Amino acid sequence: IEAGKDSDLQESMQEYHYADIAEITNELDTEQATYLIKLLDSEKTSDVLTELDEDVREAILNQLTPKEIAEEIAELDSDDAADILGELPADQVQGVISNIEDKEHVKDIVELLRYDEDSAGGLMAKELVKVNENWTVLTCVKEMREQAKNVTRVHSIYVVDDEEILKGRLSLKDLLTTSTRTDIKDVYIPKVDYVRVNEKPEEVAKIMSKYDLEAIPVVDEIGRLVGRITIDDIVDVIREEADKDYQMAAGISQDVEADDSIWELTRARLPWLILGLIGGLGAAAIMGGFEEMITKHAVLFYFSPLIAAMAGNVGVQSSAIVVQGLANDDLKGSISDRLWKEMLLALFNGLILAVILLLFTWFWKGSFETALAISISLVVVIIVAGLVGTFTPLFLDRRGIDPAIATGPFITTSNDIFGILIYFTIARWILGI
Amino acid sequence: IEAGKDSDLQESMQEYHYADIAEITNELDTEQATYLIKLLDSEKTSDVLTELDEDVREAILNQLTPKEIAEEIAELDSDDAADILGELPADQVQGVISNIEDKEHVKDIVELLRYDEDSAGGLMAKELVKVNENWTVLTCVKEMREQAKNVTRVHSIYVVDDEEILKGRLSLKDLLTTSTRTDIKDVYIPKVDYVRVNEKPEEVAKIMSKYDLEAIPVVDEIGRLVGRITIDDIVDVIREEADKDYQMAAGISQDVEADDSIWELTRARLPWLILGLIGGLGAAAIMGGFEEMITKHAVLFYFSPLIAAMAGNVGVQSSAIVVQGLANDDLKGSISDRLWKEMLLALFNGLILAVILLLFTWFWKGSFETALAISISLVVVIIVAGLVGTFTPLFLDRRGIDPAIATGPFITTSNDIFGILIYFTIARWILGI
Repeated sequence: IEAGKDSDLQESMQEYHYADIAEITNELDTEQATYLIKLLDSEKTSDVLTELDEDVREAILNQLTPKEIAEEIAELDSDDAADILGELPADQVQGVISNIEDKEHVKDIVELLRYDEDSAGGLMAKELVKVNENWTVLTCVKEMREQAKNVTRVHSIYVVDDEEILKGRLSLKDLLTTSTRTDIKDVYIPKVDYVRVNEKPEEVAKIMSKYDLEAIPVVDEIGRLVGRITIDDIVDVIREEADKDYQMAAGISQDVEADDSIWELTRARLPWLILGLIGGLGAAAIMGGFEEMITKHAVLFYFSPLIAAMAGNVGVQSSAIVVQGLANDDLKGSISDRLWKEMLLALFNGLILAVILLLFTWFWKGSFETALAISISLVVVIIVAGLVGTFTPLFLDRRGIDPAIATGPFITTSNDIFGILIYFTIARWILGI
Repeated sequence: IEAGKDSDLQESMQEYHYADIAEITNELDTEQATYLIKLLDSEKTSDVLTELDEDVREAILNQLTPKEIAEEIAELDSDDAADILGELPADQVQGVISNIEDKEHVKDIVELLRYDEDSAGGLMAKELVKVNENWTVLTCVKEMREQAKNVTRVHSIYVVDDEEILKGRLSLKDLLTTSTRTDIKDVYIPKVDYVRVNEKPEEVAKIMSKYDLEAIPVVDEIGRLVGRITIDDIVDVIREEADKDYQMAAGISQDVEADDSIWELTRARLPWLILGLIGGLGAAAIMGGFEEMITKHAVLFYFSPLIAAMAGNVGVQSSAIVVQGLANDDLKGSISDRLWKEMLLALFNGLILAVILLLFTWFWKGSFETALAISISLVVVIIVAGLVGTFTPLFLDRRGIDPAIATGPFITTSNDIFGILIYFTIARWILGI
């Protein structure tokens, strides 16, 4: 495709949506990608840039002059512009900013750069339609027409007072059906959901999806309207949050994809495997301590992977339920209630599993006493694993640590070690050695 | 709160958002909840009903007469109305429908009830603004005003021909700035994203979030416009999908919450634990087959939980990466490329882990030969586990089965058994027994 034929290419690219062009561009090498990007008309380029993978975008921007970047940035909404500038080195940001002509836009972008990426401020855009409560409907409609030029989609009209404090919102219907001389003060709806600028993105996502909002205004510490967040940014937050929890549960550090390099994948996976290895070494060391039992009760050792696996599975199950309950905010009652319930559940499940294990072992090895010892140990191991799995995420959450780390290899590893230790201790005690 | 004082309660409930009232109602017993629901004014009640947990809603609806239900349904958008009716027994649906006065609304709801819940048709609503391409701008504006009455939020204006075939969309800006006598045909935008009525909800979610759409039109098999899906429904789809994959990875059948009964939780958790138990019994049986090695090489048995755990962890990691890649559609290249890459990755990680294991075992037990045998086995086990973890979800996906089931206990269990078998076989071979 790249071999000449610029106009053909240009034409066919016109047909594509920017998200599709971004997907194609991600697959090209830097030189080709830069070439393609330069070929597109500016409005499309800027949209393509926001959709690119971070590393591809970085490579392409390195090939462009500050002036060229400035042209793209000028086309973007303030939130996307700030995201892209936030990835550039500081000296380059200077150069780019001085090349943007629209000074209002620059002011907005610079303001957004100040906010923590992991907050409502980092998600919001400055483009919104706001009116003063002291205006009449007529002034308001005029002003709105002016403001709407910069806003792609008008979700809501926000009403502020002279101090820029958010007072409420205006329905388009009311605006069109009231006399033009009415004061805004008399028609606006004083109830409006909003979030603070330092709110966590996950909280914003919860509020917006609970109340089915398509946009939410953001206010600063003293209630001044500073921006708005739209649902499409929230969809990304929800996806990322879900991906992160999922990877954590699978023992992968966040933010890797199947197509990353082997080196990146190793960095994401190896630490968790080493943790698992340490758990295994611990279990081995514990079994070494029960060496004297191996001649008479070798069968105990055969069941050690089973015990470790069951402890791990039960721990992951109970922690996953707690983590999900915490994430969806539907966990009620005290920690002790929850532990009590988990104990009953683990006891119930454990007894059923123990009966299966008992029958299998009894028929296999013919020793009822050994089979009973193994089965009773299994019940205790399952109860302990369930309690550890329930308690750990609750404890982490109270401490302000993301409870999702508890579902993965941490819980499995600690439950492996605990499980093996409890198992051999109880078995030895029952078999009276 | 419930002890009399109706008007107080009524007043304070006015202040709350329906989503908050739904949350409170979920916590009450059925009698109280029904009482509260009856107290609210009808518009709010219907919104509260849609937000309730399914079982609570069912209980409340059982307490209401068909006429009362009909009043609530009449207030709802067609998609929410159809969802609620879809949960009622067939004879009750009849009664409710005959009590709804607006026959157009009934027609829409009945049409929606026909679609599979797990499709675009099951998600869409009938409320939308559509105009005929043969109208002039003037007719169009008049008609739109009429249609907009039934639509809470106008996302897009869709253009259809005389056969109701979707032709494109109209921008509000163009509509307001062109002469009233212009034909719609000459101003509409012929490019519009849409989905088919039988498209999977996950596909709709992908399309809408890729192209940052807030609403998407739904067309039937021959291209006729039949409804539209809004982003707030898609947010729910994304959340449910993520929850399901997460629970699957943790070995929990979908759709349980921390506050469900012990019996429900057992039903969701026990089957996976039994699967794990079978894996453990398999591993025990395999070790029993290597019984003759226990006197000379007891240390091999100490490391069996470690081997099983590492096989499980690696399998979960590699399958999780593939599952996520499939879900986000960013998996490129052939299966064999992917297996080759995973093999290199597993070899690399395996060697690092094996060196740690070798040093530990060598110093602990003093036998270099045993330590070497265990370490080499570990590398092979990790490679096999990685390949199985990569291949299984890809294979399931090709077969049209949800690959997410591969990340959970299935992969762990099979890798436990494979791992132990490979480990003892290689160790015996190396130690020359």
